[in-house]
Amino acid sequence: MLGNFTYCNPTRLYFGKGAVENLKSELANYGPNVVLVYGGGSIKKNGIYDTVVKILKECGKNITEDGGVMPNPTTEKLNEGARIARESKADLLLAVGGGSVCDYSKAVSVSAYCNEDPWEKYFIRFEEPSCKTIPVGCVLTMVGTGSEMNGGSVITNPAQKLKIGHVFGPEIFPKFSVLDPVYTFTLPKYQMVAGIYDIMCHILEQYLSGDDDNTGDYIAEGLMRSLVHSSLVAVKDPLDYEARSNIMWTATWALNTLIAQGKATDWEVHMLGQAVGAHTDATHGMTLAAVSMAYYRTILPYGTHRFARLAENVWGVDPAGKTPLAVAEEGLAAMLDWMKKLGLVLHLSELGVKDDMFEGLADSTAINEGGYKKLTREEVINIFKQSM
Amino acid sequence: MLGNFTYCNPTRLYFGKGAVENLKSELANYGPNVVLVYGGGSIKKNGIYDTVVKILKECGKNITEDGGVMPNPTTEKLNEGARIARESKADLLLAVGGGSVCDYSKAVSVSAYCNEDPWEKYFIRFEEPSCKTIPVGCVLTMVGTGSEMNGGSVITNPAQKLKIGHVFGPEIFPKFSVLDPVYTFTLPKYQMVAGIYDIMCHILEQYLSGDDDNTGDYIAEGLMRSLVHSSLVAVKDPLDYEARSNIMWTATWALNTLIAQGKATDWEVHMLGQAVGAHTDATHGMTLAAVSMAYYRTILPYGTHRFARLAENVWGVDPAGKTPLAVAEEGLAAMLDWMKKLGLVLHLSELGVKDDMFEGLADSTAINEGGYKKLTREEVINIFKQSM
Repeated sequence: MLGNFTYCNPTRLYFGKGAVENLKSELANYGPNVVLVYGGGSIKKNGIYDTVVKILKECGKNITEDGGVMPNPTTEKLNEGARIARESKADLLLAVGGGSVCDYSKAVSVSAYCNEDPWEKYFIRFEEPSCKTIPVGCVLTMVGTGSEMNGGSVITNPAQKLKIGHVFGPEIFPKFSVLDPVYTFTLPKYQMVAGIYDIMCHILEQYLSGDDDNTGDYIAEGLMRSLVHSSLVAVKDPLDYEARSNIMWTATWALNTLIAQGKATDWEVHMLGQAVGAHTDATHGMTLAAVSMAYYRTILPYGTHRFARLAENVWGVDPAGKTPLAVAEEGLAAMLDWMKKLGLVLHLSELGVKDDMFEGLADSTAINEGGYKKLTREEVINIFKQSM
Repeated sequence: MLGNFTYCNPTRLYFGKGAVENLKSELANYGPNVVLVYGGGSIKKNGIYDTVVKILKECGKNITEDGGVMPNPTTEKLNEGARIARESKADLLLAVGGGSVCDYSKAVSVSAYCNEDPWEKYFIRFEEPSCKTIPVGCVLTMVGTGSEMNGGSVITNPAQKLKIGHVFGPEIFPKFSVLDPVYTFTLPKYQMVAGIYDIMCHILEQYLSGDDDNTGDYIAEGLMRSLVHSSLVAVKDPLDYEARSNIMWTATWALNTLIAQGKATDWEVHMLGQAVGAHTDATHGMTLAAVSMAYYRTILPYGTHRFARLAENVWGVDPAGKTPLAVAEEGLAAMLDWMKKLGLVLHLSELGVKDDMFEGLADSTAINEGGYKKLTREEVINIFKQSM
């Protein structure tokens, strides 16, 4: 059954080849001071930096740079970004990069004029901003997180070994996002497939929960079918525009709140994966891939019906003459086969996890209640062990 | 392939039992003068009128009534509504009803301060509003058109025997819509199933076009699967909240621009059905149902591949050992079986069409180019004949 909800997603998306040209009309909506936020500098190699700076200058903007955003943006970097935004009197934070850069920009938006410690206020106490915030715009160069059309922002506190996400309301969503599939062509294959798995995981976190009939679950199945199809094309030919554009579009709808409306969600794979990220700084999508199978095998007995539906409707398993459990397990086997075809990391040992880290990882793992089984600490440790 | 597009859908939706309570906070965003727009008066029988008026009064609004909006709103009624809105200095047009009431309110929004004949400007020349417009809000009581979250507005000119839709931009979308599935419980079965078919038809108009792989088509398949499932529950038990809520949610996503992004669309069934509506004033969804099969059989040879995909992914046809044509035809047969189970009108003769009306109907039928076959006038007439 659909529970009650309020839905509002005001982000304006410019999608397609050359979509960055739309920046010109969008920038007219904001004042002169723009903070250009980006990551490790890949946008300087592939020309996107030059393109964006040229447009900003043509539009008469004052540019302040905030580069060097790391894959797992830290509290220290956040405090620096808040200072830069405040001191430059930013009218717009323009995030040019992937999910980390966009997530970070949203955190800067709510932190620049925050009178308290932003980490404590937003990521420990999960409060909403009570201060002035700064509009965020996004030029996406990496696909996966869905950050271009949602309020999600994940920040890492290295001292506390915690990586925590806050989902802000529509007023913090990017005002606009530029989605040009061609911008993702130069991404290394490792990053591309990590992003693809992040998308799949986002959908499954929302799909593997609840027993009820819900239109959102049917939409989720459609998104997964599209993703499986396009990912297998893209992994063979990363320059296939059709596949890359569908992956980009799927990523947006996988996590822009639609398929979660009115139903329970899980998010435990993200809790496990984010613990790994906090301890190893590994690529987000790969941390999810490495822990997924052990987690799904742990909860499958508690949600067999839904895993069987997934097997049938997404992985093409023929249920004739089989028990739901057999169908469900066949579906997981098909999913594992797909993960191997993509070349995902399937072992935590490849991400820097050591045998003496399990207790610390468990300490960093939040336990959710929305899925088919609330994990015990022992189960959490076993999942990490089985994922090695 | 996904073509370039801009996506923006800013409508705020309040979904679920008792969602009308959210009107109180929403109304604070608008000035004191509200025009209450409604249809034939069913909202006075089922109590929704009293509920809304009570809230409006509690919020201190001045209420001007604009009732009597007919199922196919006319140019004459539109001119009257524009005058009412202008003379009452409306700050908000609150549409309480189904798609016709919501469509009409959008037309009033762009017509109240229009210096030209609105019919000529918007529905013949398809121009965008150049005058001040009035915000529209919606309390939905009937499901099908998707008008609660899009820019569509269909108006009928009885003198010219034309029923034409204009799709306005996001600034004309309802600012908010209240979607309470319980409000649809009292709808007569005829109206309920007509709405269900309108939803299916909206999805198919966007799905039965193009050859390319597009995530939107996968989402469309999910929506159709959900609709087929829920409609068969609802037709047996109209008070099944789960089914009615999923139908309501599916209707919104069937026509809020998402599944059409980046691809061709058809809309020829609507052109044929709207011609029937202009000549007979018949219920919209039934006009679509009556002409669909003849239309689909006409274009099937030109889009066999897509009809076969539809058969397999939505109607559950097993393709093993069959030609695509056989699969496609089996899918249409399954769809016809579903239409019969719903009790849809399958013959134009039951909607008041006579044998001497075919030429006039053809005169009123616009010929689109987005589908698998651009119809000739002879084919249009044959479709009407075969639909008798």
